[in-house]
Amino acid sequence: MRTAVSGIESAAAQLGTAGGAAFAHAIRTTDRVSKETAVASDGFTVGGCAKGAGMIAPDLATLLVFLTTDAVAEPGDVRTALRDGAAPIWNNLTVDGCSSTNDTVLLLANGASGVRPSVGALTDAVARATEDLAAQVVSDAEGATTALVVQVDGAGSHADAQAVARTVAGSLLIKTAVFGRDPNPGRILQAVGASGAAFEPDAVDAWIAGHPVVERGRVPGGFDPAPVARAMDAPDVVLRVRLGEGSGSATAFGCDLGYDYVRINSEYST
Amino acid sequence: MRTAVSGIESAAAQLGTAGGAAFAHAIRTTDRVSKETAVASDGFTVGGCAKGAGMIAPDLATLLVFLTTDAVAEPGDVRTALRDGAAPIWNNLTVDGCSSTNDTVLLLANGASGVRPSVGALTDAVARATEDLAAQVVSDAEGATTALVVQVDGAGSHADAQAVARTVAGSLLIKTAVFGRDPNPGRILQAVGASGAAFEPDAVDAWIAGHPVVERGRVPGGFDPAPVARAMDAPDVVLRVRLGEGSGSATAFGCDLGYDYVRINSEYST
Repeated sequence: MRTAVSGIESAAAQLGTAGGAAFAHAIRTTDRVSKETAVASDGFTVGGCAKGAGMIAPDLATLLVFLTTDAVAEPGDVRTALRDGAAPIWNNLTVDGCSSTNDTVLLLANGASGVRPSVGALTDAVARATEDLAAQVVSDAEGATTALVVQVDGAGSHADAQAVARTVAGSLLIKTAVFGRDPNPGRILQAVGASGAAFEPDAVDAWIAGHPVVERGRVPGGFDPAPVARAMDAPDVVLRVRLGEGSGSATAFGCDLGYDYVRINSEYST
Repeated sequence: MRTAVSGIESAAAQLGTAGGAAFAHAIRTTDRVSKETAVASDGFTVGGCAKGAGMIAPDLATLLVFLTTDAVAEPGDVRTALRDGAAPIWNNLTVDGCSSTNDTVLLLANGASGVRPSVGALTDAVARATEDLAAQVVSDAEGATTALVVQVDGAGSHADAQAVARTVAGSLLIKTAVFGRDPNPGRILQAVGASGAAFEPDAVDAWIAGHPVVERGRVPGGFDPAPVARAMDAPDVVLRVRLGEGSGSATAFGCDLGYDYVRINSEYST
């Protein structure tokens, strides 16, 4: 805690256009790397940084996100961009299912570019910057070896797609299977079923890193797990689930869970 | 799977009054021990057995509970005893947060005792048998070293008490802290806050194995974690949370989470 505070003080002493990296470094706690992003749009830029690796210190901040833009934007547009561009992504991110008491996402606009984008363009740029930071956060999650992107489509509603994406991304059995590079169709179907979403089991398809692992609710004929397991040995793995209900879609961001998560959260008192 | 099936066949070959233990043994999959119980009440008995250690095989059964009684009971009374005596306990039990597709709890009554208990007495006996079996299930949970009993009282409603008990029992950060024998007040307060229940932070008290760890929302003055940590090194640990809202109470049953949970669920494909 003392380290973080003096880090912030030292970053404050370097206030200036080049201080961003020092700030991103200073706000880290258990983070192994700094997380920064910059998205160029039509005449304006959205930049940002974030810290967060787990709910390791619930009496301190666990997820802090600072987004800045040189766009000209009214407060209402900034709120819209945060609500529609940033919130859906951060709210679909899980490391350990333990939400924090004090997560913070800020968006600051100073108008320095002189460009006033449409609220849609601003929201889109904020969403792209947020996706970049969220991917960096899950890659640096406590004890994680692989980031997991869960894409759900074909749900009967957006809410159902959200429920499936969050349940799959948060499932301990999927997280440990990803850690073990085990393409496990049964665990995917179990999580879809436990989500509470409406679905027809015989209409579910799923892919891991592009490989089909569930076809119409069943393991594909002649399924060979070996190439899928090899494809899972990557910095990030996309798990796609398609239901046969409608056009609802959602994406959740997670990570695997391995021995280091247990070590970090059991061996040291916080 | 083949082992379990031939186990059931061999148990079936031994049908008789002494076959209960063989049946309880035969239905095990990853269970390390058989779980059996018997509760004597006023002139009748409730017996039972269960299997379950985690959602390790979602294409097979993961939690099976068989309760029997020699009480005389109408189908409606048996349903009431299951709903009020057994369901609240099984529905507040978590090993890894991954609910199964095919959990089963059966209660069979043959009337052999000739005693017809009140529905309240039957429900009470079923509840005591269920508590015994549930405690055996969490003690045998995959990778667990300690069973965790979360008792919540003082909540504004039963639903709020349920939410707090389930969130605390299911929290990865609390499960890993219990594995590390780390009395961690911050993680308890985080889970209470994340539960969605109404509560006043300054009115929360908590105890681990009878030791106060939160007093009116704060770590007690002169708090010494060492004796609490020693008390946590036991086959089961009671974590009590008292809110200052009302008279709602609930109990959830869980366990710690250690390296062996990760090993069991990542190293072997199911």
